[in-house]
Amino acid sequence: MPREAATSSRQEILRASARLFRERGYDATSMNDIVAALKLSKGGLYHHFRSKDEILFHIMNHAMEITEERVMAPTRQIPDPEQRLRALIRLHIELVVRARDREITVILHENHPLPAALRKQVNARKKNYIRFVEQLIAEVQQARKGNKGIVSPRAAAFALLGMINWLYQWYRPEGPLQERDLVDQYTKIFFSGAFE
Amino acid sequence: MPREAATSSRQEILRASARLFRERGYDATSMNDIVAALKLSKGGLYHHFRSKDEILFHIMNHAMEITEERVMAPTRQIPDPEQRLRALIRLHIELVVRARDREITVILHENHPLPAALRKQVNARKKNYIRFVEQLIAEVQQARKGNKGIVSPRAAAFALLGMINWLYQWYRPEGPLQERDLVDQYTKIFFSGAFE
Repeated sequence: MPREAATSSRQEILRASARLFRERGYDATSMNDIVAALKLSKGGLYHHFRSKDEILFHIMNHAMEITEERVMAPTRQIPDPEQRLRALIRLHIELVVRARDREITVILHENHPLPAALRKQVNARKKNYIRFVEQLIAEVQQARKGNKGIVSPRAAAFALLGMINWLYQWYRPEGPLQERDLVDQYTKIFFSGAFE
Repeated sequence: MPREAATSSRQEILRASARLFRERGYDATSMNDIVAALKLSKGGLYHHFRSKDEILFHIMNHAMEITEERVMAPTRQIPDPEQRLRALIRLHIELVVRARDREITVILHENHPLPAALRKQVNARKKNYIRFVEQLIAEVQQARKGNKGIVSPRAAAFALLGMINWLYQWYRPEGPLQERDLVDQYTKIFFSGAFE
């Protein structure tokens, strides 16, 4: 198998591009830089992606894909709404703090000048996830008959997503706060906050 | 007074640059673009700032300045820790959701390739604010003798800052959720979450 075929998988291109975009800035990174970093031929890159916009779009899309796969899908299997929400908090935190796809999930939230049609597609997937979280919170509120009317599921959903998505700004897995404790504390804060 | 003198204040340059950086991307915006947008002469711009890095640094610095002025300073006047924290939540939300300096506060959180020495200065001010919030939360915990030991003031501080700073991603003042209700719900979520 020639070297090029081995290294040119779409996934690898997306991961390397995400790293370059983060390190140098999106605009300052050229298709040539990506080719050089991956030791690809230009043809090898353009075979997968026609433009930098397309790469950025697929990075964002991939971030939403792994959110759907690793957070939404396993969560859906859990019948009890409260357990479902606890699992969602844990799985979403794991997704954000674990290193493997860090570059990819961070880019999702940054304001890059993506063409409007592509931006719309990414936003539709983001909105779908927000609705999922919001509905789950509403279900837990109903089951608990707790804070209904005081905290709206929508504001609570954004509070939760803010808490978790913001982690990339400060949380370091090698720091004093263990991932397990982070999950426990965030779950405690959110459950008391939204339902008690 | 010549037109140039009237339009060339540092503040205006920072605000207009922040807007351009957000619209077009930081790298894609040149000093010439800023000159053109402000109808300045090149000399008029370079009189205030020698480089784009310097402008970016001063935008971020200004964002921290207004945080210190409009959130930390008035909060410090309040003797009771719980009232102090309630005021901080309200004032910080107001800072983030009100339009005037929106562009400026958003840029603070984005990952722009600022030279290391300048980045360090901005980060020192950010850390100072985080410490302020963390200490205040610890004080309220002590006064309430509530959740001590369960929720660490540090994790709670980052949860709160995540909730608030994330607002720029979704909150629209013209949408269904009034600023007043947003403040109430966020205060409720955080107080129950961290102290009950």
